[in-house]
Amino acid sequence: MRVLAFLDGTLADPDQPHIRVDDLGLMRGDGIFETVLVADGVPRELGPHLDRLARSAAMLDLPEPDRAAWERVAQIVIDNWRGSPELALKLVYTRGIEGDPEARPTGFALGMEIDEKVKRARAEGIAAITLERGIEPDLAARAPWLLLGAKSLSYAVNMAGVREAARRGAADVIFTATDGSVLEGPTSNVILARGRTLYTPPPAIGILPGTTQRAVFRAAERAGWATKIEPLTVEELDKADGLFLSSSVRKLTRVHTLDGNRLPDSTGLHAELAQAYDAEYART
Amino acid sequence: MRVLAFLDGTLADPDQPHIRVDDLGLMRGDGIFETVLVADGVPRELGPHLDRLARSAAMLDLPEPDRAAWERVAQIVIDNWRGSPELALKLVYTRGIEGDPEARPTGFALGMEIDEKVKRARAEGIAAITLERGIEPDLAARAPWLLLGAKSLSYAVNMAGVREAARRGAADVIFTATDGSVLEGPTSNVILARGRTLYTPPPAIGILPGTTQRAVFRAAERAGWATKIEPLTVEELDKADGLFLSSSVRKLTRVHTLDGNRLPDSTGLHAELAQAYDAEYART
Repeated sequence: MRVLAFLDGTLADPDQPHIRVDDLGLMRGDGIFETVLVADGVPRELGPHLDRLARSAAMLDLPEPDRAAWERVAQIVIDNWRGSPELALKLVYTRGIEGDPEARPTGFALGMEIDEKVKRARAEGIAAITLERGIEPDLAARAPWLLLGAKSLSYAVNMAGVREAARRGAADVIFTATDGSVLEGPTSNVILARGRTLYTPPPAIGILPGTTQRAVFRAAERAGWATKIEPLTVEELDKADGLFLSSSVRKLTRVHTLDGNRLPDSTGLHAELAQAYDAEYART
Repeated sequence: MRVLAFLDGTLADPDQPHIRVDDLGLMRGDGIFETVLVADGVPRELGPHLDRLARSAAMLDLPEPDRAAWERVAQIVIDNWRGSPELALKLVYTRGIEGDPEARPTGFALGMEIDEKVKRARAEGIAAITLERGIEPDLAARAPWLLLGAKSLSYAVNMAGVREAARRGAADVIFTATDGSVLEGPTSNVILARGRTLYTPPPAIGILPGTTQRAVFRAAERAGWATKIEPLTVEELDKADGLFLSSSVRKLTRVHTLDGNRLPDSTGLHAELAQAYDAEYART
């Protein structure tokens, strides 16, 4: 089941072609996206996702996204969804047709079923590997043209990281900076638990500010946890009481094995945090 | 004027949509491309371009491109071209539809007119700026998942570099590594002339091996020049007798101003090298 709607509100058949070959989103990976989890008809963190879409647009010098139009098109997809109770809602916004003098961006929302593999990972946890990302933690601030921390469509490296993980018998990646500090996953943020405190690295080091990470922190704080946003080193990952990857569709996924080493059992911690996170969206 | 043909040989209207929204080339910048210059019906360096397409495909774990099919589709576009004597022929090859169990790549060739701006740059030269790329020169060898030196569709950073150049009153960029060595342009290679020797940095530092750079070197050698492939530093750029950017559509373009500083006049050198390069393709 897939539901497609364009930014003007038009529903369209996702099995038909709708994009020109000279769309810069295709030709140059020149565009941005967000993936929103929709559960029981309710989009989670839509506001923060649209905030981040606007932030990515500014970083890529794209026209400011029309927030009301994006809210409308998200709702159109949700209203027309006849699939599972949960769906992944992808929002895509490209620079449009190459050489178009009016420079109209292409925008659409696509509702998709959530992969069984993702659901299994949520329940069972995953093995991850660390991979060098080759950047210094202060690079993002001094070189904005590298688009570090923008959620652009240019995700070939992120996908190559996941394939490298598969080659090494793992499901996902934690990228590291040249000084050994922890960055992010290819499509997730890193959250670490030590005692009753959750940690995640600061976006200023060139990573995406996580919408789900923020929601998990909010939920954990409500449940009595402390939270800290501060640089983390690879060494700290091994010694944590719990290591998690957060993203909209995977929610909070437990890392049970890192670089081939089994980590301390965090099943109980994960259950507690995952429940606190889901409770944020419980209907009253 | 545009001519579009798919890899199976089908001609199609480039003004109509042909790509699904869930093509991974669009969704993830997950694909590769080449741009070939066609002059007077003859594609230049098609063999080396197809070699590089195969190399990029291997780096991205894409199915090996069908060389005969690419040669055929290139010819179909050329045979159907009714525009200017010169065209840019873009070859695009993506991972195909997300979740497609048969994982069929999307492949097409698109013939396009060459921008007037490019033609002017060939004749008049350009101003360029240096921009930090934030990588170490030995990163490509140790971190293949970063796809350094693959011509992927994930070009958002390259495009952001060009926009940064425009903001600084320049037309193009020369990326530099963390140690100050010269890398490449966002869509070109760097060639430097000193005495009667041409220099360009080695692909092993994480840059694309240039098809036009190689052709220019071959032509220059025939005309009595020496050529060297070796690391270059930013300091050497200012002191060179000539600084050029090479790419298929821009051919050899002279950089007359770097980071706001006027460089020594290389008009004569440029004319000599550009003529030697074009002579490689002269009809006998």
